[in-house]
Amino acid sequence: MHKLLILAQNETKYRALIEEARLVDLEFATQPSSDADIVLGGPSRIKAALASLPALSWVQSISAGVESLLDPALRRDYILTNARGVFGELMSEYVIGYLLAHERKIYQRLEAQKNKNWEDSVTGTLRGKTIGLLGVGSIGAEVALTAKFFGMTVRGYTRSSETSRHVDKYYHGDNLLAFADGLDYLVSILPNTNDTRKIINADLLNALPSHALVINVGRGSAMDESALIEALNQNKIVGAVLDVFEQEPLPKEHPFWTTPNLLMTFHTSAPSLPEDITNLFIENYELLIKGKSLKHQVDFERGY
Amino acid sequence: MHKLLILAQNETKYRALIEEARLVDLEFATQPSSDADIVLGGPSRIKAALASLPALSWVQSISAGVESLLDPALRRDYILTNARGVFGELMSEYVIGYLLAHERKIYQRLEAQKNKNWEDSVTGTLRGKTIGLLGVGSIGAEVALTAKFFGMTVRGYTRSSETSRHVDKYYHGDNLLAFADGLDYLVSILPNTNDTRKIINADLLNALPSHALVINVGRGSAMDESALIEALNQNKIVGAVLDVFEQEPLPKEHPFWTTPNLLMTFHTSAPSLPEDITNLFIENYELLIKGKSLKHQVDFERGY
Repeated sequence: MHKLLILAQNETKYRALIEEARLVDLEFATQPSSDADIVLGGPSRIKAALASLPALSWVQSISAGVESLLDPALRRDYILTNARGVFGELMSEYVIGYLLAHERKIYQRLEAQKNKNWEDSVTGTLRGKTIGLLGVGSIGAEVALTAKFFGMTVRGYTRSSETSRHVDKYYHGDNLLAFADGLDYLVSILPNTNDTRKIINADLLNALPSHALVINVGRGSAMDESALIEALNQNKIVGAVLDVFEQEPLPKEHPFWTTPNLLMTFHTSAPSLPEDITNLFIENYELLIKGKSLKHQVDFERGY
Repeated sequence: MHKLLILAQNETKYRALIEEARLVDLEFATQPSSDADIVLGGPSRIKAALASLPALSWVQSISAGVESLLDPALRRDYILTNARGVFGELMSEYVIGYLLAHERKIYQRLEAQKNKNWEDSVTGTLRGKTIGLLGVGSIGAEVALTAKFFGMTVRGYTRSSETSRHVDKYYHGDNLLAFADGLDYLVSILPNTNDTRKIINADLLNALPSHALVINVGRGSAMDESALIEALNQNKIVGAVLDVFEQEPLPKEHPFWTTPNLLMTFHTSAPSLPEDITNLFIENYELLIKGKSLKHQVDFERGY
């Protein structure tokens, strides 16, 4: 018999969905207890409960990012799986939506409309543009597929993997500036690890063409926020769209609120939908009871 | 020997592109003349020149809409081909861009940002939605393909054709209200013909769910503009995005300028790019000199 503790805002929803699946040998715990061996939930809530879960053997995170659980001071005597394969489509919608908002001048035309101005300047297109993906995991692969659908050339920058066949050219290691050269769009989908911290710095931003648009949907830590503010203030790039920040919610006094050509979306790019996460949990639970390896297991050292 | 007259704003660009292709037996006329047998250009400019072109045998329109040339009082003793197959991708970008702007609350989040407000209400998605296409020609088929890519269910309303395999269900004739029932998005791509005039009327708008978004990228004549204003004022639909209008540019006194939940894009959805149109012209010219039927020939009676 396994005992599942749910530590998430939508606990009731998750429980109803899991009960509906009638999983064998599974009971529910309603609070941290000595016999709960499985936890489904958000990493920061789980972190707070780690000390009260002596029987813990598996954690299924409802998010892709699991930084809270990677602190080397914390225990690592359990299997940690994160949510992957469920955010790719939503992230792709986000990226394409903001690229089209830019090319189609949708804010500019709204302003024109308010002034009763027939603003028919020629629209841009995604077709023929070059997009660079910083990080090509399961989400990046989905964004790459979508970019190819819209006729873009796709570059990928990764540590070493070259798994998505929708990436036209891969770059690694020291080739970051070559990767950036000539990009129309730069999109970061990087997780928060030691290797990715402030990877989008002044050097990288300077290597982009002045018409380039930068999007960050990965983690705020990948962005050197001061360097971005300088690049935007000096028109070194045409604009930026940020979903994630070093500190969230963004403090009221942060300069981003008044930086020109910056759009913010407040960590909404890919909501964690209980239906999607539950499907993943069920799939992993069935692997667990068969004694097989779980999907999307996180390497505590590597950080993803 | 054939003689080509170009009647378009980008005449110089078109001439350079066509000269580059070194087409056999083709000369250029610089103004309407007794020996110009081919005209490439915009329908309203061509209409004005029709009487001065006694040798006219073929007109290639640079736009999809050719209403100016369909007036029954005008001559029809030539082959008229329009631009098709080149606007589908741009139109798809337009439709997807505005659907995502809606689902992603792009304008709402921009307003929040101006007020330093961390606006993280849950975003919507295209996945699982139902889109209804009024008109499924070459542009509609491309929009249908794109909608399927994003996981939507696609309905198509046509006179009788059922050619796109990306449409899940077709509707014809009297089934317009059944087609509208339950749609999340209604997109009109209809040309201006007697059958399509004011097809989007109060009955059709009333048949839509109150959360439905209406987009018109076809022709303004398909929309009963008064009925749309009433539907928007009474929140019978959630919003509308219009690229085309009964009168363009829209008169300053038109109520659309101040109608709530209405976005206007001023006939910019699919610019006619000389490179694309020239490729089509060259293809048709080569068919012409081989004595074959031309592509995208317009039926003067049917109107497209």
